Amino acid sequence: MERIRLESALRVFRGQERNHNLMPLILSLLAGIPMIQPGDDLASILLSALANTGILLEDHDILVIAQKIISKAEGRLVNLTQIVPSREAIELAKVTEKDARFVELVLRESKTVLRTRPGTLIVEHKNGFVCANAGIDHSNVSGMWGNPDDWVLLLPENPDESAKSLRKKLEDAAGKKIGILIIDSHGRAWRMGTVGVSIGCSGVPGLVDLRGAKDLFGYSLRITQVAAADELAAGASLIMGQAAEGSPVVHVRGFPYPLRESSIMQELIRPLDQDLFR
Amino acid sequence: MERIRLESALRVFRGQERNHNLMPLILSLLAGIPMIQPGDDLASILLSALANTGILLEDHDILVIAQKIISKAEGRLVNLTQIVPSREAIELAKVTEKDARFVELVLRESKTVLRTRPGTLIVEHKNGFVCANAGIDHSNVSGMWGNPDDWVLLLPENPDESAKSLRKKLEDAAGKKIGILIIDSHGRAWRMGTVGVSIGCSGVPGLVDLRGAKDLFGYSLRITQVAAADELAAGASLIMGQAAEGSPVVHVRGFPYPLRESSIMQELIRPLDQDLFR
Repeated sequence: MERIRLESALRVFRGQERNHNLMPLILSLLAGIPMIQPGDDLASILLSALANTGILLEDHDILVIAQKIISKAEGRLVNLTQIVPSREAIELAKVTEKDARFVELVLRESKTVLRTRPGTLIVEHKNGFVCANAGIDHSNVSGMWGNPDDWVLLLPENPDESAKSLRKKLEDAAGKKIGILIIDSHGRAWRMGTVGVSIGCSGVPGLVDLRGAKDLFGYSLRITQVAAADELAAGASLIMGQAAEGSPVVHVRGFPYPLRESSIMQELIRPLDQDLFR
Repeated sequence: MERIRLESALRVFRGQERNHNLMPLILSLLAGIPMIQPGDDLASILLSALANTGILLEDHDILVIAQKIISKAEGRLVNLTQIVPSREAIELAKVTEKDARFVELVLRESKTVLRTRPGTLIVEHKNGFVCANAGIDHSNVSGMWGNPDDWVLLLPENPDESAKSLRKKLEDAAGKKIGILIIDSHGRAWRMGTVGVSIGCSGVPGLVDLRGAKDLFGYSLRITQVAAADELAAGASLIMGQAAEGSPVVHVRGFPYPLRESSIMQELIRPLDQDLFR
């Protein structure tokens, strides 16, 4: 039933001209993603889920994937009972009222601690982005032994590489050129609530440069660079949901910019000397 | 042709159960929005554009609207030759290398200046959000007299009220309950590029509280509040584009959360005492 509905919806847009200015953007949850375990072959799992949801990959499609299942498949689980906190971690744990072993892992995953206060630890992750707790996660982690509460999940070691490897496998299987975007939910300066942001990409442009483009009146555009990957990350995160009825993978048709063979998340990181808020 | 295609696509989803977990999110540009002039009746213009695009409003649909056309319709155009800069504006204009009359307007629209450097002026707008130049815009402004370069466009005086008034008119005309989201493009701390964010809303929840919701493993969620309106703003901004081939209005079907009779943008503003980056 589900399958028939999505198939009919997608058939309408299939094979039509790309980047048409009235092409809708369609974001669909993939059904049937099982619990991911370390070592799982995500490419095969995604291909099954696509088939199960009734979606045939086309050129220019994008899959947006929650970092959790990438991290899990890559075995980035750590048991806190195995961690000996450093003196620095113990001090920081007092200030932030967090588990010192957890803080130790955050420090190992980070370049710099930016802000602390009770309940909050904001760092610059080794990969460059600013986020709470270096993106280390307690939820959705099923322990392999011992107390489930002792297991935490680190971000993928190299999310761009994870995205690239997955893209290559899916492109080979489907015979289509696609994009992969790995996302997480981050808090923000100034504004409440979390939004989806990219932490890794392949094929999907991070920034799109509109310099020289003209607006409706022929003025050159004031805004020159759009964070297209982050805009897509936020839109996909909206339907992914955080709760049990969601799905960690969203299929995207109608992304309005060309894909690129070479794209890296790093272009979304504001260099320190251009950042007035770090 | 365009019309037939969108109609067929949308027909598939019409009248189906809301909030179904596999309901796709469909974002479509509205075709045929003319140049907006001060005093224009936006509600009528949007109804024509919906008809022109082949979209029949349904309960739970949302229209995402670029602030420019709201501001323009509300006559928020100012001619810089009419502005006498204060001493403070003149000083700030030197530091930021901007037109002192423009800086004067930015100050009048702001509560606080947060950061300055050559080319950059970041403020807390009267309405609470942090952005460059108080959201005052040079592009897309057609002057009514004199040199077009002298005309700038301020943000709507009260974007929530603008959204509410538009929503009521469209709901009365269509007989459906919908949401209205007014968005702008903002730069961010830490990350490059702009993203769409909400500056006013009616019907659309700013924050969605997931406290108490369980994830796939039955854990309570670590992330409790999702900035749903901002996630939608970013997704819609992606296809709106900044350039001539875009459109300032996006129709949304499949928003995954219930709409609210009462919603205000203010819930997305982080209170000063909870903001570590202001």
